[in-house]
Amino acid sequence: MTRIVRTVAELRQHVRAWKAAGEHVALIPTMGALHDGHLSLIRLAQTKVQRTVASVFVNPKQFAPHEDFDAYPRGEARDAQLLETAGCDLLFAPSGAEMYPQGFATTINLTGVSEPLEGAARPQFFGGVATVVTKLLIQAEPDIAVFGEKDYQQLQVIRRVTRDLDLPVEIVGAPTARAEDGLALSSRNAYLSAGERAAAVALPNAMKAAIAAVRAGGRIDEAEAAGKAALAAAGFRQVDYFDFRDADDLSRLGPDALNEAKPRLLAAAWLGKTRLIDNMGF
Amino acid sequence: MTRIVRTVAELRQHVRAWKAAGEHVALIPTMGALHDGHLSLIRLAQTKVQRTVASVFVNPKQFAPHEDFDAYPRGEARDAQLLETAGCDLLFAPSGAEMYPQGFATTINLTGVSEPLEGAARPQFFGGVATVVTKLLIQAEPDIAVFGEKDYQQLQVIRRVTRDLDLPVEIVGAPTARAEDGLALSSRNAYLSAGERAAAVALPNAMKAAIAAVRAGGRIDEAEAAGKAALAAAGFRQVDYFDFRDADDLSRLGPDALNEAKPRLLAAAWLGKTRLIDNMGF
Repeated sequence: MTRIVRTVAELRQHVRAWKAAGEHVALIPTMGALHDGHLSLIRLAQTKVQRTVASVFVNPKQFAPHEDFDAYPRGEARDAQLLETAGCDLLFAPSGAEMYPQGFATTINLTGVSEPLEGAARPQFFGGVATVVTKLLIQAEPDIAVFGEKDYQQLQVIRRVTRDLDLPVEIVGAPTARAEDGLALSSRNAYLSAGERAAAVALPNAMKAAIAAVRAGGRIDEAEAAGKAALAAAGFRQVDYFDFRDADDLSRLGPDALNEAKPRLLAAAWLGKTRLIDNMGF
Repeated sequence: MTRIVRTVAELRQHVRAWKAAGEHVALIPTMGALHDGHLSLIRLAQTKVQRTVASVFVNPKQFAPHEDFDAYPRGEARDAQLLETAGCDLLFAPSGAEMYPQGFATTINLTGVSEPLEGAARPQFFGGVATVVTKLLIQAEPDIAVFGEKDYQQLQVIRRVTRDLDLPVEIVGAPTARAEDGLALSSRNAYLSAGERAAAVALPNAMKAAIAAVRAGGRIDEAEAAGKAALAAAGFRQVDYFDFRDADDLSRLGPDALNEAKPRLLAAAWLGKTRLIDNMGF
């Protein structure tokens, strides 16, 4: 079985021993409820370094009081089994008290890339993400850390905070893993009923159609409006955003995305009680 | 001469070479304008580790627009000479662009210990301090870092953020260095006129008297009021605070400080255009 450690001291003991032996180490931070998307991050890490560490911590600081912290799927035994199958060397599964001991008082906040999209919909989200990821990177001292492009804005926030704080780690983004019908893999897909799961494919389909329309010379605002209409028609009850943005800083694009250096389409929409997000490059 | 490096890459090259050779390393962060107080931090570090690195960076993020960032005393050649005399191994003197490159967007904020006293008088101060010190600790990767007790609340803020972010460094507090008459050494003492310098001794004297009064059974509130009155009589134009506080979290003390576990007296007051701070334990 993949070894499980619960304290920073044990985590560092393993990582430092590997590094002392000349091995390089990857950290793959997760909130558990592992699926093939997470395992693809581990496989990518294994092509780059000798040792992989997955962390599983459902971070209370990135959930607002009305969000799904309590309901978020948890199952350590299953997660550990999947990590074992993937050949992951170590699972770091700290308690809440190990991560945020009595008197904890520090928050890492970003301006800029953290503000639109997810930041607008979930005001405390990226402060919580930046704080816990910074802690995990300092705790584990990895050479690289791998994050999925599925959470694209999160990836850009983590790139920014890592650069800003001079953390000696390379941040690697991994392509979004998708189901056969194109839906991005997500732990929150477990919330979908069978009918909702069937409808969910409208999200990647609407995104592909919007990108194709803009590629064919269509206007960005019209492609965004058509995408939102397609989602509403498919049964999505609300679209938080369906936006073409600059791929680096997530600022709004000018009227013709194809003239921009790196456009990216990002979307978030609600199917019943489940909020799905996705993004695609050109 | 003490070697000067200006980039994080060069800094890490030196520190990592020392550590690879089995030597331990201390960082002494400063804003330059070095005096015997700073040199006492280096001497303390030299009793604990083999290698000492001083940083000199006047951090714009901890000054408000109306404060003395532009006027803050600077003189690298003199600083480097003093470090050479003290036997300091390396001076890290980064540019503003090296510390805060284009697009920098991250701030580290604390609640609790950062909020009263200096935090109340200077709302952006500790966010700036926590951000730059965290960066310096991540940049330099020292085994220990030494800070003067002169900036006592800053020391407690740094202890808290270091613990909260799991930075692998021991924070060492060094006793306040004082002039013969008792005035705490400070780079800002350079702002004092001869008359103000003579009057400034009223600050440590009023603090010693307040501690003696409380020790003799006097009431805290009366000792604080008497201290403020003494400073006004000595020509201080404003007292920001003159408070007995809990030495760990700087919370207000109950009516009898001597029954508290660890009381500490902290004061800040203005002499002309110069703001002096000091603190003393029991």
